[in-house]
Amino acid sequence: MQPEEFRAAGHALIDWIADHRLAADQRPVLADVNPGEVRGSFPTTAPDSPVAFDELLQQLEQRVVPGLTEVQHPMHFGWFPANASLASVLGDITSSGLGNLGISWESSPALTEVEEVVCDWMRQLVGLTDAWKGTIHDTASTACVVALLVARERATALAQNQGGLQAVDAPLVVYTTSEAHSSVAKAALLAGYGWDNIQSVDIDPVTRAMVPESLAAAIEADVAAGRTPAAVVASVGTTGTTAFDPVDAIAEVIEASGRSIWLHVDAAMAGTAMLLPECRHLWQGAERSDSITWNPHKWMGTILDCSLFYVRNTGELESVMSTNPSYLQSTADGEVTQYRDWGIPLGRRFRALKLWFHLELDGIEAIRTRIRRDLDNTAWLAGEIEKVDDWTIVSPVPLQTICVRHMPDGLSGDELDEHTLRWVRNINESGAAYLTPARIDVPGLDGSWTVRISVGVENTERRHLEALWDLMRTTATSALS
Amino acid sequence: MQPEEFRAAGHALIDWIADHRLAADQRPVLADVNPGEVRGSFPTTAPDSPVAFDELLQQLEQRVVPGLTEVQHPMHFGWFPANASLASVLGDITSSGLGNLGISWESSPALTEVEEVVCDWMRQLVGLTDAWKGTIHDTASTACVVALLVARERATALAQNQGGLQAVDAPLVVYTTSEAHSSVAKAALLAGYGWDNIQSVDIDPVTRAMVPESLAAAIEADVAAGRTPAAVVASVGTTGTTAFDPVDAIAEVIEASGRSIWLHVDAAMAGTAMLLPECRHLWQGAERSDSITWNPHKWMGTILDCSLFYVRNTGELESVMSTNPSYLQSTADGEVTQYRDWGIPLGRRFRALKLWFHLELDGIEAIRTRIRRDLDNTAWLAGEIEKVDDWTIVSPVPLQTICVRHMPDGLSGDELDEHTLRWVRNINESGAAYLTPARIDVPGLDGSWTVRISVGVENTERRHLEALWDLMRTTATSALS
Repeated sequence: MQPEEFRAAGHALIDWIADHRLAADQRPVLADVNPGEVRGSFPTTAPDSPVAFDELLQQLEQRVVPGLTEVQHPMHFGWFPANASLASVLGDITSSGLGNLGISWESSPALTEVEEVVCDWMRQLVGLTDAWKGTIHDTASTACVVALLVARERATALAQNQGGLQAVDAPLVVYTTSEAHSSVAKAALLAGYGWDNIQSVDIDPVTRAMVPESLAAAIEADVAAGRTPAAVVASVGTTGTTAFDPVDAIAEVIEASGRSIWLHVDAAMAGTAMLLPECRHLWQGAERSDSITWNPHKWMGTILDCSLFYVRNTGELESVMSTNPSYLQSTADGEVTQYRDWGIPLGRRFRALKLWFHLELDGIEAIRTRIRRDLDNTAWLAGEIEKVDDWTIVSPVPLQTICVRHMPDGLSGDELDEHTLRWVRNINESGAAYLTPARIDVPGLDGSWTVRISVGVENTERRHLEALWDLMRTTATSALS
Repeated sequence: MQPEEFRAAGHALIDWIADHRLAADQRPVLADVNPGEVRGSFPTTAPDSPVAFDELLQQLEQRVVPGLTEVQHPMHFGWFPANASLASVLGDITSSGLGNLGISWESSPALTEVEEVVCDWMRQLVGLTDAWKGTIHDTASTACVVALLVARERATALAQNQGGLQAVDAPLVVYTTSEAHSSVAKAALLAGYGWDNIQSVDIDPVTRAMVPESLAAAIEADVAAGRTPAAVVASVGTTGTTAFDPVDAIAEVIEASGRSIWLHVDAAMAGTAMLLPECRHLWQGAERSDSITWNPHKWMGTILDCSLFYVRNTGELESVMSTNPSYLQSTADGEVTQYRDWGIPLGRRFRALKLWFHLELDGIEAIRTRIRRDLDNTAWLAGEIEKVDDWTIVSPVPLQTICVRHMPDGLSGDELDEHTLRWVRNINESGAAYLTPARIDVPGLDGSWTVRISVGVENTERRHLEALWDLMRTTATSALS
């Protein structure tokens, strides 16, 4: 395709995207398709001859759009707010349009240096000191793998340069809680620690946050048993209930242990809140950790994939992740950052542009105002729910996630769980809103399945929460009959 | 930013991108900036208030464009052809515009199922049987990590579910060659095998391909010494010289060993050639491997990041990479593909769109014609070089990469290497073309530094190769004086 054809098609596409966004709230939130339905609408072999762009847009509309769950819909309260601000979309489009290649500083100096710039801006915006250097990974899952790899190598004095983890005697242990994101256990397994060496530290039954005294006891017991504490992963805003592990107290425990245990702070969701000075007490002590990750592609709204990963000791990171083949060496080596040595992939897209565009076009104050709006709206909804007897909020609401059960008299145990799953499914299948069911066991509270309301889509206003609350009550009541 | 603002800005951006592409060959290939220069053009803190889109485009032009190395330039012969066809760019823009979220089938059924469709189309287009299922990773580096993780777990009967790699006694060994991409050793280190357990199998001094008899001997010796052969990584088109490890013979060696060693085929660069039936003899036996990766984001031209990863046994892959937290469970489980269980990150972009758009808008026949053009052009240039006495092609040219030295009488050893680095640097710094220097030691041939000419940028025609050959001769001669 030549640039002039691209120009014509591109204009049509921009209009299509703008129209699609304008109509986001006219579509069902959850895609109403059966497994295999989208796949079945495509031919089983690649097209022999090219189609015109207009025709492809029609195919997109007919085959793909019905299969899209609309996370930009103001009635999307599922998983997490996966905002894709249109300002950041413009940055992402620019990245695509430039078609640059990030495999070394030399292969695109701007790609590297704009990433340095925006990572440093973001560092300042969440109140971290200049001891931190950042990069952009695809997701917090990958960031956690990287953190646990560097932790592994710190604990084994770079065993990878000799016999590897398999040559290590004392088992290395990773500490986290049952509330940590599933990617934490996955990262520990991929890094080779093994399931038996993931220590699930006690949580406080109310806050669902790690109990630092239990961490101290676990570390002590492991050391006594000849095991090597290697890493602690602290969750700052857990996926289930946005619980906050007490980072400062955890750092204190690590310091008191006299061991250089790697402390990774997973603030994937709640990092956005740290844009607000009044929220920063929630990750007090983050500055004392070894690595921090948070995802502007969640609540803040820089389009996925954009997961920030900060470390204090870049040399330690590079000693684990670095490769330096001759064909990538250049005269700039030593003077520049080689981001290939900060993560797993060699090649990278120009992801910094979407953060830059987002900050320049929306502006940080508007972003902060929107986040405060979401916190206010969440507090309002939580207040309304608390007023009604047969509804229960099952855990504290420190941020923008409310975990709720409808607990009418006469329902308990499995019946209660079935009721919960029934009413939430009825809402989700209606397409009017989307909420995520999740298992959250609260001591002393009957039932296990809970409904998470994750507030924070860019276009979600108070009126959408009012509509949701109406819908929840109506649907839950109907589900009883 | 609201959709109507996006519409206006988007139209301006499309024009900017089209103009930028039209002028690609007017810019220097290699960015002419010093380390820190782009970074220094930005303020040290994030902007307080938003800017208008016009102003941001000006900043982009002033601060960023001078720092771009232009890999879409027809005189770019560096690293590999990192083509970003404008058809695929439109698909990538669509992905950005939709702002979808891939964390489960349910979070965007179309995102998952279009990926299934295009991976299957691509499988057919390179002639693999329907025994293979594919997914899209960011890069071949990540694909290799995944392959070596699954290999590790196969060799240890899923040790990750117990004590992990650190509980394993017999060292696991990975076999590859000195010519494999740097990401192979990196992947083995990250997966915990350790440097000592990466066996560098002998290569043929002429073809630079793995010698299967040496592989057989190495496996036998390791088994005798109590080590466990876990994986072989065969390079199909090495980075240095596009050497082809003999996959069929390697599969034969593995079969003869009676051990279920994981065979990973890294065809990152040369996979594109397999779109041509006449090239498929080069990876004869790939069908017998356990995993195959190749990057449409290289020569084929689907914009980065687009690395295909195929496995035959998806159950084995999922047993290593799967997580299934309650908040991601749905009624569709068991009937659908959950790509989160096929790789490291949980969340994914809608990358399938760029492959779909590329195939629909450019069409496979035009893509095949272009690849054949590149092979013809490469053969032409190699023929011209061979005619001239003081130029030497240092290794066979099976594909689109020519490794060359200018070896005038009287220069040898370090002086020859200095001469090589001097003339290639003079070309690169001129901005007129870009070639990659790399160390390639050929037995019996003086010198070590070589210049790689990687042919295959979308807009590179015969006349650009003619211009390059003139430039090489002139510059190399001038560099002598």
